[in-house]
Order: sequence, then C-alpha cells, then structure tokens
Amino acid sequence: MLARHYGVDVEVVDMGVDHDFAPLVALRSCKVKRGTNNFARGAAMTREDARQSLETGIRLARQAAVQKVLLLGAGEMGIGNTSSAAAILSAFTGLAVRDVTGKGTGIDAATWARKVTAIEAGLRLNQPDPKDSLDVLSKVGGFEIGAIAGLILGAAAFRIPMVLDGYICSSAAVLAHRFSPHVKDILFASHLSAEAGHGAMLDQLGLRELFALDMRLGEGTGACIAMGLIEAAVKIMREMATFESAGVAGKNS
Amino acid sequence: MLARHYGVDVEVVDMGVDHDFAPLVALRSCKVKRGTNNFARGAAMTREDARQSLETGIRLARQAAVQKVLLLGAGEMGIGNTSSAAAILSAFTGLAVRDVTGKGTGIDAATWARKVTAIEAGLRLNQPDPKDSLDVLSKVGGFEIGAIAGLILGAAAFRIPMVLDGYICSSAAVLAHRFSPHVKDILFASHLSAEAGHGAMLDQLGLRELFALDMRLGEGTGACIAMGLIEAAVKIMREMATFESAGVAGKNS
Repeated sequence: MLARHYGVDVEVVDMGVDHDFAPLVALRSCKVKRGTNNFARGAAMTREDARQSLETGIRLARQAAVQKVLLLGAGEMGIGNTSSAAAILSAFTGLAVRDVTGKGTGIDAATWARKVTAIEAGLRLNQPDPKDSLDVLSKVGGFEIGAIAGLILGAAAFRIPMVLDGYICSSAAVLAHRFSPHVKDILFASHLSAEAGHGAMLDQLGLRELFALDMRLGEGTGACIAMGLIEAAVKIMREMATFESAGVAGKNS
Repeated sequence: MLARHYGVDVEVVDMGVDHDFAPLVALRSCKVKRGTNNFARGAAMTREDARQSLETGIRLARQAAVQKVLLLGAGEMGIGNTSSAAAILSAFTGLAVRDVTGKGTGIDAATWARKVTAIEAGLRLNQPDPKDSLDVLSKVGGFEIGAIAGLILGAAAFRIPMVLDGYICSSAAVLAHRFSPHVKDILFASHLSAEAGHGAMLDQLGLRELFALDMRLGEGTGACIAMGLIEAAVKIMREMATFESAGVAGKNS
C-alpha cells in the first residue's frame, strides 16, 4: 500500500523462507536454504551461505544500476530476525544484549527475558569475531540480513543512494559498514524504530533519522515514507524558484 | 512545489500586504489593512480589525466545508511575524521572550537582541490581557495570524481535521486554543520548527510533531509534507489487508 502510494517499485526476494514456493512472477527466488539454523545451538549458517547471501544483494544492486534506479530502499520480513539484528549489533559493539533487544512483534516480559537469554547464549556459544564480518553474519545473522548488507555494498559501489528501513535493515547496514565504512555516504536513515537498540545502530552509522513515528513493522514501510520525503526534497532543489530567479529583493536591498 | 508534489490545493489569501494588488485570479483579497502597526509603539491593530481577521478565517473554513474538503492546512508569509508569534506565546504563557524568540529568516546575535528588546517593549507597552484573547491578537498579533486562528476555529466547528505548519501557524493555534480548547481535537502538528519556542507552542496545545527536519521556512511547507503522511496513514487504515483478512495465522495458531 505504501509503495503504491509513494510510487515505489517493489521486488520481493525469497532469501530463505522455510517453504518451497511454486514459481511465481511476483517472487524472486534467491533462496540460500530453507531457513537458518538456531544460533543458540550453533552457527546460523555456513561461511559459504553467508557469502552467497551477500553476493545475492550485490547482484540485485548491479541489476538496479543497469535499470538506472535512482534511489534504492530495503525492507524485510522474517521470523525471529530482531534476535539476529540484536546479536549482530551486540557482537560488533559489545553493547549489552538486554539494552539493544526490543519487543519485536510484541512479546511479554517473560518472553522478552527468554529472548535476551537465547541471544546471549548464542553469542557465548558462537563467539562471533567482530573483526571478521563474514564470521558475524554466518554465526548469528540471517540470509535476508546478508542480502540487504550486500545490496548496500553494491549500492555504494554503483553509487546509488539507498534508504534504510528499521531495526533489521539497520543491522544489515551496521554489517555492511564493517565491510566498508564508505557505505555511509550513500545511506539515508528513514525512521527511528520503536525497537530498542535502533538508535544505537544509527549512531554506529553516524546517521540521523528523518522521522520517528513509533513504527515497528519493518517490511520497508519506513523506507517508502522516506523515499517520498527525499523525492520532495529533490524537487525542492530542482524545481523551486530561488529569491534570485524569482527577482525577490534580498534583505540588504 | 510541495503542494503540487503532495496533491494539495493552494489558496493564497491576502490578509494585509502593504501593497495594492491588481485583481488576480490566484490571489484572494481579504485585506484588513495595508499592514499592522508597529506593536513596539502601540497596538498592532484595532479590536475590530482583530475580529475581522478571525472572521475571515472562519469564513474560509465554512467555504472549505461546503467544498467538502477532507483535510485543511495552513501556512503563511509575513514580514516580522515571528515577532508577533513570540509575543503571543509570551503573552499567554508568561514564558520569557528571550526563550521563545528565534532567528526568524536568519539574523545575527545583535539583531536578535534588538528583536527580543522590541518584543519585550511591545508587551510592556501594550499589556495584552491573557484572559482576553482578542486583546492579545489586537495588541501584538497580525492579520494572517488572526485569519489562521479563525480558520482553526472554523475547522473545529465544521469538524474538518487540520494540519498546522510551523512557528507562526502554531502561535495562531495557541490563540485559537485560548478561544476554544476543543480545537485540539482536530489539529495535527506537522514538523518541529528549528525556531526556538515552537516546542513550547506544541506543549501548550498538547500536540506532538510528526517529524523534525530542521525546517524554518513556514509558507505551508511542513503542512504539505504532513498532509502526505496523513494521507498515507489513512490509506493504511482503509486499504491494507489485516492478518485476519489475508488469512495469516496468528502467533497462537
């Protein structure tokens, strides 16, 4: 609905849904595997799978460049991926899991406590190496997070500006930023998510949100709204008369 | 440009430009007088002029109701009207002029200090009575501020939701709110202006901004952007599938 409202083209990419879809025009299949492994019991994926998910994103960015896309955005849907996002942030920054873990789709205090414990256990078990970004992705990440990080790296390489969505997308940006700090130059934050820890991610990236609407949905909703704002800003730069062009007297005239 | 981008119809109303325009289709003449008086030397306008500017706004709201306008917004252009806005806020709240007075279109520290002194002098000289809203408008207000306050009162009476713009519009809302606190129910704040004191105005109204983009232009720019956001929000409410309608299994299924 928001994509339609803001005139944004949507491409839905299956990076790893635990279901075999019939071939659908509306769904691009880039499935790495049917779901990642439970990172509380071992690595979420192999190093090769992590590389494949990144490369999928880079390939999607290359396609966007060929199609002369002027502005990219990312969104995601995933089960349990706020846990991966929190683990990635904590692995890279050392921030306490309890400080960067939110309620996700809306869980009670007891479930939240179990979520924190599981993420802490996963980090303790897997010991992701913050100096090895592929290691972090493979041990506590997800295929969609890898693909978005790859899309960001590709967008930077092809010089396409790109809008982040919320908490999960921003964890992918934190990951991409560890691969190459230059990605910051093409990134826009959209909203500040209601999810705890999102602000810390934007701090890591040195980005400031355009708006804060207490959204917590993901799925590219924030990215769409931000794309509408950026389009308006570009039109202001390109189409609005200046005092000079409109012949308005300056304050010193 | 922003109105075109967001599909907003614009009506430009002359409330008191110090110039006699030739009749123009694009300009609606509701001029009260060619400019208000300098409130540092006496009342800005007569009580009758204040009433006329308010009634003009109410009439414009009635017209919008007849035309079945679904969402109203206001913007303004005016010379020196950040001074009127600061004076109105200070008169009603007792907040110190220096705390609610900003740089307007961009003045240096010395000019800012003179601006503060002039506003303080105007308040001391005119002694606007905070219990008599028409007195405040007539002594330190402006015709455009009166008209916007009237538009807000009319919008509330005709139950048309309305979006505020920045600092000046919000001072008109503070004024309208003193006439009738019910106006709050139909008002949306748009952006939080970079102008000092705007936050205090929104606090008075019990409103929270939708976004803060460090804008300081007025002219309805913030209102247009907010109208786009509200339109998107309404579409989410009306057009988006719910978990139930889309047959998505709930978390307890």
